[in-house]
Amino acid sequence: MLVLLGCGVVANVALARSKGFNGGFLMVNFGWGLAVFVGVIVAYASGAHINPAVTLGLVASGATEFGNAALGTTVPVDVLTVLTYIGAQLPGAVLGAVVVWLAYKRHFDAEPEAASKLTVFSTGPAIRSYGWNLVTEIVGTFVLVFVVIGFGRNGDASGLAALGALPVALLVIGIGASLGGPTGYAINPARDLGPRIAHFILPIKGKGSSDWSYSWVPVAGPVIGGLLAGWASHWLLPILG
Amino acid sequence: MLVLLGCGVVANVALARSKGFNGGFLMVNFGWGLAVFVGVIVAYASGAHINPAVTLGLVASGATEFGNAALGTTVPVDVLTVLTYIGAQLPGAVLGAVVVWLAYKRHFDAEPEAASKLTVFSTGPAIRSYGWNLVTEIVGTFVLVFVVIGFGRNGDASGLAALGALPVALLVIGIGASLGGPTGYAINPARDLGPRIAHFILPIKGKGSSDWSYSWVPVAGPVIGGLLAGWASHWLLPILG
Amino acid sequence: MLVLLGCGVVANVALARSKGFNGGFLMVNFGWGLAVFVGVIVAYASGAHINPAVTLGLVASGATEFGNAALGTTVPVDVLTVLTYIGAQLPGAVLGAVVVWLAYKRHFDAEPEAASKLTVFSTGPAIRSYGWNLVTEIVGTFVLVFVVIGFGRNGDASGLAALGALPVALLVIGIGASLGGPTGYAINPARDLGPRIAHFILPIKGKGSSDWSYSWVPVAGPVIGGLLAGWASHWLLPILG
Amino acid sequence: MLVLLGCGVVANVALARSKGFNGGFLMVNFGWGLAVFVGVIVAYASGAHINPAVTLGLVASGATEFGNAALGTTVPVDVLTVLTYIGAQLPGAVLGAVVVWLAYKRHFDAEPEAASKLTVFSTGPAIRSYGWNLVTEIVGTFVLVFVVIGFGRNGDASGLAALGALPVALLVIGIGASLGGPTGYAINPARDLGPRIAHFILPIKGKGSSDWSYSWVPVAGPVIGGLLAGWASHWLLPILG
Repeated sequence: MLVLLGCGVVANVALARSKGFNGGFLMVNFGWGLAVFVGVIVAYASGAHINPAVTLGLVASGATEFGNAALGTTVPVDVLTVLTYIGAQLPGAVLGAVVVWLAYKRHFDAEPEAASKLTVFSTGPAIRSYGWNLVTEIVGTFVLVFVVIGFGRNGDASGLAALGALPVALLVIGIGASLGGPTGYAINPARDLGPRIAHFILPIKGKGSSDWSYSWVPVAGPVIGGLLAGWASHWLLPILG
Repeated sequence: MLVLLGCGVVANVALARSKGFNGGFLMVNFGWGLAVFVGVIVAYASGAHINPAVTLGLVASGATEFGNAALGTTVPVDVLTVLTYIGAQLPGAVLGAVVVWLAYKRHFDAEPEAASKLTVFSTGPAIRSYGWNLVTEIVGTFVLVFVVIGFGRNGDASGLAALGALPVALLVIGIGASLGGPTGYAINPARDLGPRIAHFILPIKGKGSSDWSYSWVPVAGPVIGGLLAGWASHWLLPILG
Repeated sequence: MLVLLGCGVVANVALARSKGFNGGFLMVNFGWGLAVFVGVIVAYASGAHINPAVTLGLVASGATEFGNAALGTTVPVDVLTVLTYIGAQLPGAVLGAVVVWLAYKRHFDAEPEAASKLTVFSTGPAIRSYGWNLVTEIVGTFVLVFVVIGFGRNGDASGLAALGALPVALLVIGIGASLGGPTGYAINPARDLGPRIAHFILPIKGKGSSDWSYSWVPVAGPVIGGLLAGWASHWLLPILG
Repeated sequence: MLVLLGCGVVANVALARSKGFNGGFLMVNFGWGLAVFVGVIVAYASGAHINPAVTLGLVASGATEFGNAALGTTVPVDVLTVLTYIGAQLPGAVLGAVVVWLAYKRHFDAEPEAASKLTVFSTGPAIRSYGWNLVTEIVGTFVLVFVVIGFGRNGDASGLAALGALPVALLVIGIGASLGGPTGYAINPARDLGPRIAHFILPIKGKGSSDWSYSWVPVAGPVIGGLLAGWASHWLLPILG
């Protein structure tokens, strides 16, 4: 499981590197969206848990089992399961970041800017303001988790099931394009913290600071946003049919 | 319903903000297309009414019920229903615009141009000419509503049903790319008027005018275009089989 | 039928206008691809004949009926049918170009360059060389028609049917990105000739020449490419199973 | 088979030409992704073998037959079959490159830079370092082949089958955006070697060197990456259910 999730996140994190190369926020949006597409497919049997914020949101919404009912791979939700899922997501993200570093080794050596190196690994705010940065991450993650839970509720009837991982990928592209401007949209604690740990550990030439003072925002924001979305969907979706 | 629609429009309106950041009309097209994608999915049970022009077009085409037959959530069409639907779309759009303002709070503070702030909320013409701007909005909305009604007619046979909200999203991207140049393509009265009201009310720093003199164009144009498309589809589609 | 096809081509042709506005060949590719997507859906019952090159290619491949078997709207193929289909495609394209002119009326007035106005309507070569331009159009149309006929042969088994018009749209985006550089990829005689006629007739301010000396290339090239693809698919596809 | 595969690769290779014209790495990513989309569809009956790295990866994963079970076109896997498949992929790629040259004939004549001409045909490293370039190609191909094999395993349940060639196309776009920076992502030995042979043979005006000293990297990298992914999927996927 851990390696599988890690593999999904490899592609995921890897895509951020393109940011340093080619102008174009849209390309970064597509890169991350497709990374999520691949990650969800690879982690399919486990219910595609590649984001702790989604995992927590599902718990908050009252889900009683994880996994894929169609494949018969469901497991009951309890504290241990949740910790195992989240525990697997973080080292997977670290491993993915290490592989990205290997694939771009010579480009890291050739890059003079320390800030450009950190940006491959972790997000950072355009305007540093912990409170408002937190709001942005909460809003972005809320949209992600609320809609993902909505996908699950009327998936079959709406034809979404037939599209597999595609709607989630499009959703992530859309959130990135709309709400990614202020903070670079972590909307996933593991996606930000895992690579930051990798950045801290790896012997990257001229790497500079890992910006630990900001690191709590892209963890706390997605966790809060995911929990709020889970509770909101628990109360709102049944009323709305 | 109101909150659910509002939530769909949150993502929707939010996406326009990217316009101010990153060059690229194509990115704005994708942002809005994906916002519609998310909005349609979230508002699925209600028949995905997130645009009064589409609602009115369906009435003009002779539809006798709204909602989703597959989910058993249909309601008969009468004056009250139509007013309720349209009445819910506008406050949802206002609410969405407020959340966008929160997510980008510090960026609104830092932006010196008042015109750039209004553009996040509402559309405006590239060349101001109320008559021709109206023509452009009518043409754009006609294409949207005529094709959306066409989707419904032979959805199953054409395999469109299996794609869910994706064809509508692609349609909106296409209309934006083709007909969005002159007016910024409102093609939805609520999408333009709701955020304009939010712009008028909110204490945005240095916000300038809400350009009420233009505000009737992106309301009247989509309403006329939607009604024309409804009547056209009522008379043309049965002839064409 | 004529109006319906025309309507599809409206959106189609309309999208080319974006070319004049915003940099980005990729955006033009997407615009045309999505226009084809909409055109195919609107003209669905008639078998989605919006391109004479495809119509002729199907005849050359030995097709005995046009239309949509699932909808029970097939008609036998004979000389009259073929002429009717092609005869409907051209005025539809002219009508579409007129609507585009209306939607962008003030922008045509404001544009000083005559060449930029023609480019909205019709294609032109990057390097003028009738022979090689013809080769490029033949190759592009061959790929289009050969693959479209291939879609039809094993559509169900390959899951393409479920995607409806999407594969054709993606194909057109791909051909544009790959083979559109030298001539702007007409790959459809009606798409180029119809708008050129509209450009010739309409009272466009300062419009300049309609470049009739080049006009035969985007007609002859697609016709030759379509026929070659039809014959090739007739002989090759059965052998290949 | 050979011609059919060649035809798929025509479109495929052709798309790289856009690189020389229009800025935008994302456009090149889309071009190649859609080329793979077309190639997979055209070569559908044979099991869509257009990449020797995927063919070898399937062998390494323990596949016992190639082809398409739904179409009844499977063949048993043995040394002769594998050699036939790979043997057909290379001349197809050469043929495709020749057609691209014809379609862009005048543009090759007009281009002064020899390096720009080679880049149409084959990949090259951004920073030349055979060892690290090899690592990048191994990582990229590993992701491609591992995920493609994963598609096959739980395709039906995950709804991927309904999307046909689309997930593979999106995967290639994603890998290009994420891991294509350092080497231009061959991730397919035939895609690089075939066009390089065409570049060597064709009488291209002022073409310069075919860079044979680098040519082994985009062959060895994908072969190693494909085999590793095949073995990895053989051992990991059953454990992960």
